Amino acid sequence: MTVREVYPEEKISSSSLLHRSLNDSPHLVEKAIGSYLYLQNGTKILDSCGGAAVISVGHLNQTVIDRMADQLRCLTYVHTLEYTSSPSEILAEKLLENYHDQIGKVFFATSGSEASEGAYKLAIQYFFERGLTTKTKFISRNQSYHGNCLAGLSLSGHKGRRAPYEHILNSDFHKISDTNEYRGKLKHESTDDYVKRLVDELESKILEIGPENVAGFFAETIVGATAGCVLPPKNYFKGIRQICDKYDVLLILDEVMCGSGRTGTFFAWEQEDIVPDITCSGKALSSGYAPLSAIFIGHKIIKTLSNGSSAFNNGHTYQSFPLSCAAANVVQDIISENNLLQNVKNQGNYLGECLSRKLQNLKSVGNIRGRGLFWAIEFVKDKLSKEPFDPSVKYGYRVQKTAWSNGLAVYPGSGTIDGHYGDHILIAPSFDVSEDLIETITNIIAQSIQDCENKYLHS
Amino acid sequence: MTVREVYPEEKISSSSLLHRSLNDSPHLVEKAIGSYLYLQNGTKILDSCGGAAVISVGHLNQTVIDRMADQLRCLTYVHTLEYTSSPSEILAEKLLENYHDQIGKVFFATSGSEASEGAYKLAIQYFFERGLTTKTKFISRNQSYHGNCLAGLSLSGHKGRRAPYEHILNSDFHKISDTNEYRGKLKHESTDDYVKRLVDELESKILEIGPENVAGFFAETIVGATAGCVLPPKNYFKGIRQICDKYDVLLILDEVMCGSGRTGTFFAWEQEDIVPDITCSGKALSSGYAPLSAIFIGHKIIKTLSNGSSAFNNGHTYQSFPLSCAAANVVQDIISENNLLQNVKNQGNYLGECLSRKLQNLKSVGNIRGRGLFWAIEFVKDKLSKEPFDPSVKYGYRVQKTAWSNGLAVYPGSGTIDGHYGDHILIAPSFDVSEDLIETITNIIAQSIQDCENKYLHS
Repeated sequence: MTVREVYPEEKISSSSLLHRSLNDSPHLVEKAIGSYLYLQNGTKILDSCGGAAVISVGHLNQTVIDRMADQLRCLTYVHTLEYTSSPSEILAEKLLENYHDQIGKVFFATSGSEASEGAYKLAIQYFFERGLTTKTKFISRNQSYHGNCLAGLSLSGHKGRRAPYEHILNSDFHKISDTNEYRGKLKHESTDDYVKRLVDELESKILEIGPENVAGFFAETIVGATAGCVLPPKNYFKGIRQICDKYDVLLILDEVMCGSGRTGTFFAWEQEDIVPDITCSGKALSSGYAPLSAIFIGHKIIKTLSNGSSAFNNGHTYQSFPLSCAAANVVQDIISENNLLQNVKNQGNYLGECLSRKLQNLKSVGNIRGRGLFWAIEFVKDKLSKEPFDPSVKYGYRVQKTAWSNGLAVYPGSGTIDGHYGDHILIAPSFDVSEDLIETITNIIAQSIQDCENKYLHS
Repeated sequence: MTVREVYPEEKISSSSLLHRSLNDSPHLVEKAIGSYLYLQNGTKILDSCGGAAVISVGHLNQTVIDRMADQLRCLTYVHTLEYTSSPSEILAEKLLENYHDQIGKVFFATSGSEASEGAYKLAIQYFFERGLTTKTKFISRNQSYHGNCLAGLSLSGHKGRRAPYEHILNSDFHKISDTNEYRGKLKHESTDDYVKRLVDELESKILEIGPENVAGFFAETIVGATAGCVLPPKNYFKGIRQICDKYDVLLILDEVMCGSGRTGTFFAWEQEDIVPDITCSGKALSSGYAPLSAIFIGHKIIKTLSNGSSAFNNGHTYQSFPLSCAAANVVQDIISENNLLQNVKNQGNYLGECLSRKLQNLKSVGNIRGRGLFWAIEFVKDKLSKEPFDPSVKYGYRVQKTAWSNGLAVYPGSGTIDGHYGDHILIAPSFDVSEDLIETITNIIAQSIQDCENKYLHS
């Protein structure tokens, strides 16, 4: 019974498992080691995106596996109503070690979606306990993504992912513009003026809804898969923080994709010179070894709860799951002991240089953007007018498929501009990536885009 | 780095981890083996509830651990947009093996909450793809629990868990009576008449909302923690199924707590002589070894999606997570190879007999109910009038604490009757429980209740 079973590839198309598509069969992966995926059919794929920017310390890291196996031999599950465990306590302490001034406590769940839902509920409970029971409405941005459960979906601004639920997402959720210097900034507008316009829009929206009704503003510090690694304009979050403070609105930053070291600091917001009230993290936190997400909670919220009900009204079976926390502990140790955040910064800069150097003259490359090891390439049909491809061309998907046939996995995105138009691919290598690997990755990307231009750009 | 770290017990009260309560410190568990928890302070606790009915094959089962460690050495995470893995495919096939007539495909997520959200979205999408875009409202029951994300919370009928979010849960969610023969059935009413009344209530509610607006009816086949193992009256679900069919409403059964073999059949609904359109499972499915939940989807829904968009619009990073699926695979193998579902039936009957024999004469024991290895004891201040204790007494909590000090873990519940009044404890031992262990468990429970009666019944 301890022999690992192998599923026969030819049965995938009639599988009992609901795949992402009922038409296309996914590839059967047998092993993943370091930066490579090994398919059951013998194909070897260089993984430059870690799935959806999940992998931080490589696949099959022996140290992670050993520590997880050790945890398995000791304790996997305890119910958090009565019990706690060393891995969860140690992880909490480790993650907050350098942030005690900014953060009060952390809550662990399993998925980014659960983190969003938790943050949403926590914000409402915070005001409820202060007697401000009308503060239940939220503002978020277009082209955002905050998970697939109902609150997160309601907060998310990606039209494709919201359909067919659009009509049931209720009036407690309001949207303002996304921030995108490539597409959103006006022709003769300075970044300062653009930021002022965006920040003013938040203030106007708060005043429109009524500050007494607004609980929180949700945003991804760096926008993830929906728009492709879109950086906040300089000083944007400082302006947003001021408006949130002015109207007693919580600032909640979703760093499930862009955080946990992905951009060179544990929190992406450290590079924006602000501190949010709540941060959601996930993915790279446990590097895909076990499901884990985190809600980092500011002191004022913890204090309010302590003086009130004394309990966050949100429990999950796999809350503070010892095995997941053990995985994240060793992942964080590896990052720290090998100074990998510095490598993220260094190789991130190198990756940006390589992409710029190798891709900027390609006709379909409209914008190259990112920070740390979190980069995207947005495609256009016409570089000057920034006109996107018709969605029927599926250009981003074509680039991804071409890269894949060239042995490289990248993460595709469509609806980049408005949920319907626009294409990009996303690259998010493991934090230990080398210059050599970056050369290989960017060479294959350049070649794959060139291949696609030859096929689709003049058709 | 591979040495397991131990958190010092004295630091728990100033922990960086957000515990369930900001006032009380949880106990630090060091190990869990078989049916026992070993605290760091040396205390040994007999676990009769597996946390929240999570454990099906015992803690630290060597076969599970070996297979999981084997999976760790091979593949933990793959992104399901492009890839699949043997553990997830094999698990899907294994679980559906005997149910191909009733179920089309299965979707794996990590938590029960995610399963509820997914089922909710799937129901809406099913009607959307049939062009029935107004069918977006749901009916569920009072005293129910369907998870802690926003849709699940909106479906749930437990007042305590809904506060302080009550006012934001929108009008798409409607409630009807819970089904409870002990409290809900009128004095001279037969079970048939009671069932007719309950089924008529569903029909009236559908007609009130308009059948063209109702997507689904959500219910726990056997009600879990909110009301304490409340069984459906005989033929209740047959009546409910007919009404759902009559008005083209999906029947969605939440078996996260009561299913996956907990009552002696893999699905609890097998003992109700019906087949739902969607079933949510979790907890015992992977026995707490790794976060896993499942949405079992009927053929008509799969067919509609296949003929429509061809994709369920709901993705998660840890969807079909290979490590969790590997854990569930070995858990299911152990259950099957050791004929544990038969043991659940046999020992479940014995547990019912023991509880009845040892507790029925205790003055505070109002009702003993359950099926398989899923039993609850509801407490009353007065047996005849069924008057509950005042909530300030926290009687269920007192029984739990007393049992705990007698070396036994049981799962407490309050607000059993209406979210405010009522107390119960819940017992859900591992599927391999023996008669001897049941004797021990029920002896300690009897003694603990007696102790509490001496202290609190006449105060």
